[in-house]
Parts: sequence; structure tokens; C-alpha cells
Amino acid sequence: MTAYKSETNARTVIALDAMGGDYAPDEVVLGAAAVASASLNITLTGSPDEIERCLAGADPESRQYLKIAAASEVIGFDEDPVKSVRSKADSSLVVACREVAEGRADGVVSAGNTGAILTAALLNLKRIKGLKRPGLCAVLPTPGKPTLFIDVGANAEVRPVHLLEFANMASIFAQDVLEIPDPSVGLVSIGEESVKGDELVLEAHRLMAESPDLNFYGNVEGRDIVRQVVDVVVTDGFTGNVCLKLMESTSSLIVEEVKKAASRSLMAKIGGLLLKKEIVAFKKSIDTEEYGGAYLLGVRGLAVVCHGNSSRKAIASALKYAARASEQRLINKLEERIATLVQT
Amino acid sequence: MTAYKSETNARTVIALDAMGGDYAPDEVVLGAAAVASASLNITLTGSPDEIERCLAGADPESRQYLKIAAASEVIGFDEDPVKSVRSKADSSLVVACREVAEGRADGVVSAGNTGAILTAALLNLKRIKGLKRPGLCAVLPTPGKPTLFIDVGANAEVRPVHLLEFANMASIFAQDVLEIPDPSVGLVSIGEESVKGDELVLEAHRLMAESPDLNFYGNVEGRDIVRQVVDVVVTDGFTGNVCLKLMESTSSLIVEEVKKAASRSLMAKIGGLLLKKEIVAFKKSIDTEEYGGAYLLGVRGLAVVCHGNSSRKAIASALKYAARASEQRLINKLEERIATLVQT
Repeated sequence: MTAYKSETNARTVIALDAMGGDYAPDEVVLGAAAVASASLNITLTGSPDEIERCLAGADPESRQYLKIAAASEVIGFDEDPVKSVRSKADSSLVVACREVAEGRADGVVSAGNTGAILTAALLNLKRIKGLKRPGLCAVLPTPGKPTLFIDVGANAEVRPVHLLEFANMASIFAQDVLEIPDPSVGLVSIGEESVKGDELVLEAHRLMAESPDLNFYGNVEGRDIVRQVVDVVVTDGFTGNVCLKLMESTSSLIVEEVKKAASRSLMAKIGGLLLKKEIVAFKKSIDTEEYGGAYLLGVRGLAVVCHGNSSRKAIASALKYAARASEQRLINKLEERIATLVQT
Repeated sequence: MTAYKSETNARTVIALDAMGGDYAPDEVVLGAAAVASASLNITLTGSPDEIERCLAGADPESRQYLKIAAASEVIGFDEDPVKSVRSKADSSLVVACREVAEGRADGVVSAGNTGAILTAALLNLKRIKGLKRPGLCAVLPTPGKPTLFIDVGANAEVRPVHLLEFANMASIFAQDVLEIPDPSVGLVSIGEESVKGDELVLEAHRLMAESPDLNFYGNVEGRDIVRQVVDVVVTDGFTGNVCLKLMESTSSLIVEEVKKAASRSLMAKIGGLLLKKEIVAFKKSIDTEEYGGAYLLGVRGLAVVCHGNSSRKAIASALKYAARASEQRLINKLEERIATLVQT
């Protein structure tokens, strides 16, 4: 088994797909330059010329903590995930995953094609021993404190034991990386009572209630996901993916409509201007960039899937959380928990 | 087969559970009084004394179009749906359903316990011939024009053919009751391409694409549900129920947070006041009470499930749409479509 960089060295190294994202490579490279340090080294993968051009605009001090790993290809947003990952072995994404797979980095971050990131991570990084299914965990910027939401799309079809694995992995991530003490876990269903839901949910409920290391709350409903009823919300990748996209769309729709309302009359325009500072503060509090992206839990090396439209801030956040996961020896803790689950 | 009231008489009769809802009987009865007319008669079920007391506050002119059917029991929000419907045969809800079942009314409206309404309607009203599963169709108040969303909770587990039935029934409802010409239909999945989704979605996609009377758009994602990409959004009752509650919760959370922002400083308060008129207009445009409630499609006689917190306005809307459905001979049209589906 390949040793992680973090096990052999106090310095953390994260591989970053410099060419993935709507604003790549510029915003991606500048995000890396903003957080690179003696304790957090970053390996940028992509075209060395392009990356060097972007770095000309960054703090020269950061340069010593950044490394470039050349990659001649890029996977586009419209490409088929499986085909592109298989055919483009020298793409910035696949090269970044290989940095982790071959032990030169602890985690990988990309704002490229989501399906391709999942495929590349699942194909290149080993699965944690005994684990059946890795899960993709989003961090929702709910007011006050974040809510973890797993699985948001790694698995369209799951069995009850997969939901149990998701619950355990996201709890550890919540506690060790996001510093939420003794995180409570809810299972999405169509009623609060333990008898509500389809067969998948009924059996998963039973498994989670019996899982010794989980702080299991019970079922939660759709309305509870954004209401901080629990710290970790668990569901299958189909429901989770639909819900995540719906949530983002609904909140941006409402904000757009409020903005439109604030431009409909002179009085409303003045009102909007007077309110602007507070609205900006509110929008900041529910900023999805705060937590970088979604975290693929269950492979040996954390993979972070950032939004395609990530700014340097989102990239910087993702790198920081990936580094914190490595410092907290997240993968080892996930391995220990999964080993316990397998025994019971 | 029992003839509908509307087939034998131009006058429409809707049965209304006068005792169901957070603000029952007062708001429920006043909602009925507001829309009762020579062409829309309403049968109020519940305690005659209570109903008469509420009617004292209504326009006396309406009284001639209202009838009372006595019911001595009420099903509470916390009661088990199946048990309560079976044990309380003289509840206002069950009595209202019986009005339809026995041919004295064309549809039933209730703002009571949702599970109990579905149970009572499914047990008491005959299913449309050849139909496998009735579906619960919500009408989302998306800006501009409404979006129909089916199934929002009648069926936790479904097969592909059930989704095909939902699509066909909701299309007819959209066209004939909500007057949306040639409504487009989308199937919820985790990607737009026809190869995306679980087995249920893949097979349902194939069936819907081949269904001759459907204006099938293809797959839609979570973000599209509120974006008017299609007129009718089809999904299983688990996903639909979770999404509906999530949508309501997310939009009310954002509106609450904007309100809070508008009270944080003197300037923000003044801004909020100047904006108030436009915000009220916007809130009205996305008012869930506009469309009354969710419509159970597939039983002989329309059943309308209103929100527990329905005001007289929501009750009045539900009664008007139930009456329009009856005038449009919705049930006959659904029967014809289902007969065609069964043949092919």
C-alpha cells in the first residue's frame, strides 16, 4: 500500500487541476497562490506556459510552495466522463489524480467536469479497504453553521449499507475537518416516523439506529435539510443530486426576484440601495464558495469537486479543507471506522 | 358505474371537509362562502353547529348554495392515516369523500391530515379503469406561469409505467384546468442526457418518449424544476415529496433572511419600508395559495389536498379549480387517455 505524503512528512501536498473550471487557469492558479505556504504545498497540473503566465500576477513569495506537473490535455465540460478520462491520460485532471495515486500528493482539487472528476478519482485512487461505495458530500452554507449533505451524485442507485457508510464517513468529516462536535445525522424520508419511506430507507434507518458510533437523529424531511435540524443529512445519490441542484436554483431564483423587485420603481431602487450592505452580508453568509466544493469520501486521498464557476476564493477554500483533512489524517480515520463497520 | 353529478346536471357540487386544517372551521367555511354560486354548490361536512356559527360571519346570499352534511368526528394532524380513516367513518373527511363516492358531489377538498386525505380518497373513490396508480400533483407558483409537479407523495415506490401515467394525467390537468396549451413534460433525472439516471428513469424515459399524446421534452435536472424549463415535471413520490418540502423551506428561509437583513440597521429598515410594496407583489406572485393545493389525479372524482395552514383564499382557489376540473369533464378525459395507454 502506498504511503501518503502526510504520513512521511509534516508538509501537506495537494494536487490542483489548473485547467479545470470556467475561469481556469487564471482564477484556479491565483487561488492556489493565495494559500500556498511552507505547510501547504500545491502541485499545479496543466500547461506549464499557461500556469507560469498566470503566476506572473501572483505574490512572488508563493512561488516556492508551488510546483508544476505538466499535462498536455484538458477535459471539457461537455465531454463524456468515462470516455474522456480513459482516452486523455495526459489531461490535467488525470495527471492530478495520479499525483495522489502515486503518493506524491495527499488530495486532489478540480473545478472541471464533475462526472469526469468522479470517474478519474474512482478509477485512479484506491477505495478504502472494506468500503462498498464512496459518496460525494456537499457542504451546504446554511445560516449559522454548515450542513453536510451526502450523497449528492456519486451513486444513482444504492443499497441500505451504502447509506450507512455515507453516514459514518460524513460524520467523521464533519467532526474532524469542519469541527462540528458530535455531529447529529438524519436520514431523508417522506415522514419523520421510522416506519415512513421506501424499503431502502426503512432498512437504512434500522442499520443507522444500530450503528454504535453514529449520533443518529432519525428521519428528516425535505424541509429539514436547510433548517439545521441535523448536522449531516444522508440520502441516495439520485435524491441528493436533484435536491442540491433544486436548492441552489430556488435560492438564486428568489434572490434574483428580490433584486428585480428592487428595480421596479424609484422608491424601490432607493430602498434597495439602503438595504444593499445587509443583503451583501446575507449573501456572503450563504456563499457556496466558503466550503470550496463537494468532497468525495471513501477513496484513499481526498478528492474535492468544485463548482465549474469557482473563483479563486472557492479554490482557496477547497485547498484549505483538503489540507486540513490531510493534517487530521482523515483517510486513516475513515479506514478505522469502515473496518469497524465491516466487523459488525 | 355511478354517474357524476356533473354528467346529470350543469351545476357542480364540491364536498368540503369543513373541520380539516389549522384554521378550520372558520377559514374553511368562509372560503366556501366566498365562491359558492348557482353554478358551484358546496357541501360542507362537519359539525352543523360549528358550521352555522362560522356562516353567521359570511355573506347571507351565499347560504342558498351551501349545504351541510353532518359529521360527528374529526381526524387530527397527528393521527395515523390508515387507522384513523378506518376507525372514524363519521369524520368530516370520510363523510366528504363519501359524498363523491355516492354520486352527490364531483370532487372533494380538505386542508386536513395529508396522509389521511390520500388514504380516504384512495379507499373511498374508485380508481380510473385501467390505471395502476393515482398520483398527487402539486402546482408550483413559479414566476410567470405555474409548473405542475407530480408525484409529490402518493407513491413512495413506483415502476416506470406509473411515471408514464403521471405524465399523461398531469398533462391533461395542465391543459384543461390550468389552460396551458400543449404542455411540455420533463422527467427528473441527474443529467439531461437520456442515458442518465437509475433504471427506473431510463425505462420511464423510453416509455414517455414513445407515448403518442405526450409533448415529451426529455430529462430535466433539479435546477430546472423551478425554472420553467417544462410545464409538467414528473418524478417518483419519494423524490417529489422531498423536493416539494425542500423548495418551500428554502424559499421561506431566504425570504426570512432578507427580512432579518432589513431590520439590522436604521438605514436597512428604511430601505425595507421603501421596498415593501414590490416585495409584497413578488411574494404574491409566488403564493402557494393561488392554486389551492395538490390534486390527486386518477380517482373517480378529483381530490384536492390543501396545505394545513390554508386561509380562506387557498380554500376558495381549491374549490374553483375542483369545479373547473368538473366543468371540463377532467375525469372522463383522464379515463379516455388511460384507456389509450392500456391499449398500447
